[in-house]
Amino acid sequence: MYIVCFDMESVLTPEIWIEFSRVSGIPELCRTTRDEPDYDKLMRWRLGILKEHGLGIQEVQEVISKIDPLPGARKFLDKLREDIQIVILSDTFEEFAGPLVKKLGMPTILCNSLEIAPDGEILAHKMRISHSKLSAVNAFKSINYNVISVGDSYNDLEMLKASEAGFLFNTTEKMKQDNPELPAFDDFDSLYSAITAVLKG
Amino acid sequence: MYIVCFDMESVLTPEIWIEFSRVSGIPELCRTTRDEPDYDKLMRWRLGILKEHGLGIQEVQEVISKIDPLPGARKFLDKLREDIQIVILSDTFEEFAGPLVKKLGMPTILCNSLEIAPDGEILAHKMRISHSKLSAVNAFKSINYNVISVGDSYNDLEMLKASEAGFLFNTTEKMKQDNPELPAFDDFDSLYSAITAVLKG
Repeated sequence: MYIVCFDMESVLTPEIWIEFSRVSGIPELCRTTRDEPDYDKLMRWRLGILKEHGLGIQEVQEVISKIDPLPGARKFLDKLREDIQIVILSDTFEEFAGPLVKKLGMPTILCNSLEIAPDGEILAHKMRISHSKLSAVNAFKSINYNVISVGDSYNDLEMLKASEAGFLFNTTEKMKQDNPELPAFDDFDSLYSAITAVLKG
Repeated sequence: MYIVCFDMESVLTPEIWIEFSRVSGIPELCRTTRDEPDYDKLMRWRLGILKEHGLGIQEVQEVISKIDPLPGARKFLDKLREDIQIVILSDTFEEFAGPLVKKLGMPTILCNSLEIAPDGEILAHKMRISHSKLSAVNAFKSINYNVISVGDSYNDLEMLKASEAGFLFNTTEKMKQDNPELPAFDDFDSLYSAITAVLKG
């Protein structure tokens, strides 16, 4: 039996922080791990900026609810889910992902969480496990699933390589060149065909 | 972080084979593991009966699509999923569960599968893994989830006991008496309160 694991950002939805920065009008929030490679430090800095702007979880979710999945993502998932179970494996936070996951038809998402005060202030981020995507793929393999996975970036490579079939999607030319063994697609129709070809053996 | 694992039949939906027997008008199909304790033998017998009646997967799914979830189940899940990830752990088959899972709002279901011929004939059943519910709970624990689980019958006990919180739901007086350490509920409101009490610590 197969299960398909999807990275979320850039694959099914825009990058949340970049879109958040644009929609909220707080340009410095588009800083990413390319600017600050220490993710923990970056997240503490981001939460500090939210606090400075008086944005609690409710305000943040209101902004995120204005972000839409990538065009075609919902239709693609709906069609795929007729035949196969899917889960989203993401390094984002459940409370941020919520509004986007609803727009994607409520697939299960395994990610991280936030510590939130009763008044809505976001106090801290809590990472569930290191190598979270690889760990999840191994967990599904441990219960006899064959895993197909789809991702776009460096933090997806472990997951893609541990899967029976790993596909790059919406990625860069450099990622494609550096990982020639991973088939790469840029549109949902081609990705759908590649996944169903694996399912049909 | 928490995840909630649900048994499906008797908890969120009726027993599929009993309802199938009723809706399809094939009374002998309400035979269960109480009559034939060897599940593998029972399933081969059931598939033989389907074949005798000329019922392929399409006809079977048409019958199953007439079965509804238990009253209140969808509303309960929708409300719960605002706050927490859920999965269904079931010993049924993906192809049978499909129409019911749609009516439940498309939660992820981890179960078994059928081998189906191109003409729709159901050839065989394929069990993914032994102790499938316990294995799934352990898989989620391996990636640092705290598991809450809900079930009604003997084949749920391993799952319930391996979880941080295990709840009996819609079960028999005998199950309640034999497992006094497992809180038991008979309506979705009480179950919702019990689950959210765990989430809030």
